[in-house]
Amino acid sequence: MAYINENYLKLAGSYLFREIAHRVADYKEKNPAADVISLGIGDVTQPLPPACIAAMHKAVDEMAAAETFRGYGPEQGYGFLIEKIIENNFPGLGIESDEVFISDGAKSDCGNIQEIFSEKAKIAITDPVYPVYLDTNVMAGRTGALQKNGHFSGVVYLPCTAENGFLPELPTEHVDIIYLCSPNNPTGMAMTRESLSRWVAYARENESVILFDAAYQAFITEDDLPHSIFEIEGAKDVAIEFRSFSKTAGFTGTRCGYIVLPKSVQGRSADGTKKSLNPLWNRRHTTKYNGTSYIIQRGAEAIFTPEGKRETAAAISYYLENARLIREGLESIGLEAYGGINAPYIWLKTPHGLSSWDFFDRLLTGADIVGTPGAGFGPCGEGYFRLTAFGNRENTKRAVERIKEKLTF
Amino acid sequence: MAYINENYLKLAGSYLFREIAHRVADYKEKNPAADVISLGIGDVTQPLPPACIAAMHKAVDEMAAAETFRGYGPEQGYGFLIEKIIENNFPGLGIESDEVFISDGAKSDCGNIQEIFSEKAKIAITDPVYPVYLDTNVMAGRTGALQKNGHFSGVVYLPCTAENGFLPELPTEHVDIIYLCSPNNPTGMAMTRESLSRWVAYARENESVILFDAAYQAFITEDDLPHSIFEIEGAKDVAIEFRSFSKTAGFTGTRCGYIVLPKSVQGRSADGTKKSLNPLWNRRHTTKYNGTSYIIQRGAEAIFTPEGKRETAAAISYYLENARLIREGLESIGLEAYGGINAPYIWLKTPHGLSSWDFFDRLLTGADIVGTPGAGFGPCGEGYFRLTAFGNRENTKRAVERIKEKLTF
Repeated sequence: MAYINENYLKLAGSYLFREIAHRVADYKEKNPAADVISLGIGDVTQPLPPACIAAMHKAVDEMAAAETFRGYGPEQGYGFLIEKIIENNFPGLGIESDEVFISDGAKSDCGNIQEIFSEKAKIAITDPVYPVYLDTNVMAGRTGALQKNGHFSGVVYLPCTAENGFLPELPTEHVDIIYLCSPNNPTGMAMTRESLSRWVAYARENESVILFDAAYQAFITEDDLPHSIFEIEGAKDVAIEFRSFSKTAGFTGTRCGYIVLPKSVQGRSADGTKKSLNPLWNRRHTTKYNGTSYIIQRGAEAIFTPEGKRETAAAISYYLENARLIREGLESIGLEAYGGINAPYIWLKTPHGLSSWDFFDRLLTGADIVGTPGAGFGPCGEGYFRLTAFGNRENTKRAVERIKEKLTF
Repeated sequence: MAYINENYLKLAGSYLFREIAHRVADYKEKNPAADVISLGIGDVTQPLPPACIAAMHKAVDEMAAAETFRGYGPEQGYGFLIEKIIENNFPGLGIESDEVFISDGAKSDCGNIQEIFSEKAKIAITDPVYPVYLDTNVMAGRTGALQKNGHFSGVVYLPCTAENGFLPELPTEHVDIIYLCSPNNPTGMAMTRESLSRWVAYARENESVILFDAAYQAFITEDDLPHSIFEIEGAKDVAIEFRSFSKTAGFTGTRCGYIVLPKSVQGRSADGTKKSLNPLWNRRHTTKYNGTSYIIQRGAEAIFTPEGKRETAAAISYYLENARLIREGLESIGLEAYGGINAPYIWLKTPHGLSSWDFFDRLLTGADIVGTPGAGFGPCGEGYFRLTAFGNRENTKRAVERIKEKLTF
């Protein structure tokens, strides 16, 4: 008799975006003339950089002739892409080519990395949080049941709210694995060098491992914020970093990301022996993954050409200008808005203690705008609301005008 | 203190292809003039079908304009591809669109599927076997230690040798999960309808689940062999099928495959309740995977156009002609050769009781040809040897000539 993985039954329904879709469909049915603008889902709208387009056409052509055809490549990714990543994104940080693993995106990597750790590892996540970190640990059996307060037992939650400037505080109990995301989805806030240094020090002292999701680092505009955790002294012994081309270069539908896992990061085996995590991940990656498409890796490589850099920088500026317009629009009607300066997300505090979902309804019915209720990212997201800067300029401007004209609290 | 997943320490080194590379390098160093031909690794050499090339160019162009740009797609894959798959590969079998999940390849799917089952599930695999089935279960903790006989304790091995016609026999003890691969890698032999029916009956009787790897089904030439397990009556209640475009259409470096998981396939939860596996896999897939690249899915869709079908059929015939040449060449010098008729692999019995590795050395030093020792696929592969038909025609012919001229036993 084939028994199932019982942990799946603990998962809460993936309810958030389905409920949003349901409410929007209902509203549109009742208001067929409504011109609804979505600032809800974190998906890009600008086309791929021309440099990537040209590189992928070339790669497709290579696949058309036996002389240049590529079959299986290295599971860890092609050297041509790994070298460009190290040179451009980690200059002077001493990252070696066998410490970078190319994948189909940060979602896969963030979801799979937990496999190399003990099922008994104690996990810490921020609240609110990108759901993948939590759900994949629930599936792996590292949590107890979902409690009435919206938290899973056995997990250490690190609240991130306006009160602590959205910077997670060190836990009072010991944790083994710490998920940090900076710049943050959903809050749009970035960790300072000082705050991140405190976490690295904690991890070194407690022999913990930090899983650092830097998928949004390209949006950092302020000078002294770290783009990589490896800029923090000592991090190379305790941190694994996740990067993605999804938001950097519009690859959400093209799919490419990578992990940086220095060989100096260690865990312990049951007998207390220290073990480098890099060979474990290498074994996991090469056993369960056959490498990212050659065509896509060539597209990603082109991001690092002079044109590619110029073009991706232009797209990021475009989204950041959207973010500025949204943020200033919200502030102009007296709303408290966070993020949007070093990230494509604006995180606003709902006025007059409105719940996230009540604010959702007010925004939809009052201004024909769709956003994402903060409560969907965790209990501490209640009373907050996420808007994204990934729309096109025209829709973003129209949305901001409507917010100014039609929303009153 | 971050403890590691201790199960990784049970794994045997991924020794096979490294050892092959080592012996070949050593031979080449000592014989710099040697013109070594590899019939070792199962990787294709023919370029992608022109229909796929054209489709991917078009898709790349779509990504270059905001109007046609694609961001996140459905994690399960685009409807345009899923519909084509059902229509062409499962006609009349009643497979529904939410029973097909597009991925980056069968290696990922075969590796990940075990996650939805209990860690206590009893696994059966054939011997010899594609190592991914076993290794991913070792990593997940479903086995004991590696024993001296080359088997992991806690796993049920199903020997496939010349004595049983390479058809696995039903186990005498109860098993929960059964991995079957037909046409088989490495033996090159396909399961008959009758043999597969026995397994379906066993699974129905024992509430087991069959994980059916049909990655090589496109190479079947004999009329009455099943291409899909769902051709067998009753299989839709007990089987999950894996397919790949890697060998069908040369996608080893392009990456696309899929799972077919009928909603009628069930497992049980700890309390005995029956649970459909499809929603579990859907949850796993959507939580840990963000969909296959749009560009690649368009390339895969083109396989099902009239030109695409013609072109892929031509490539498969090309490889099968190589297989015939190799097989007949081996037989002409009195070797026992299997496979190569419904699969791109030829599995030969080493003469005079030579070990797999001794035969490897004889073939390399005697004829400058590289193959794969059968022992690398499991203890029952000892005394066998795998050659692949994926080379180009010229090299294949030259290799066969050398085998005929230079090998004597």
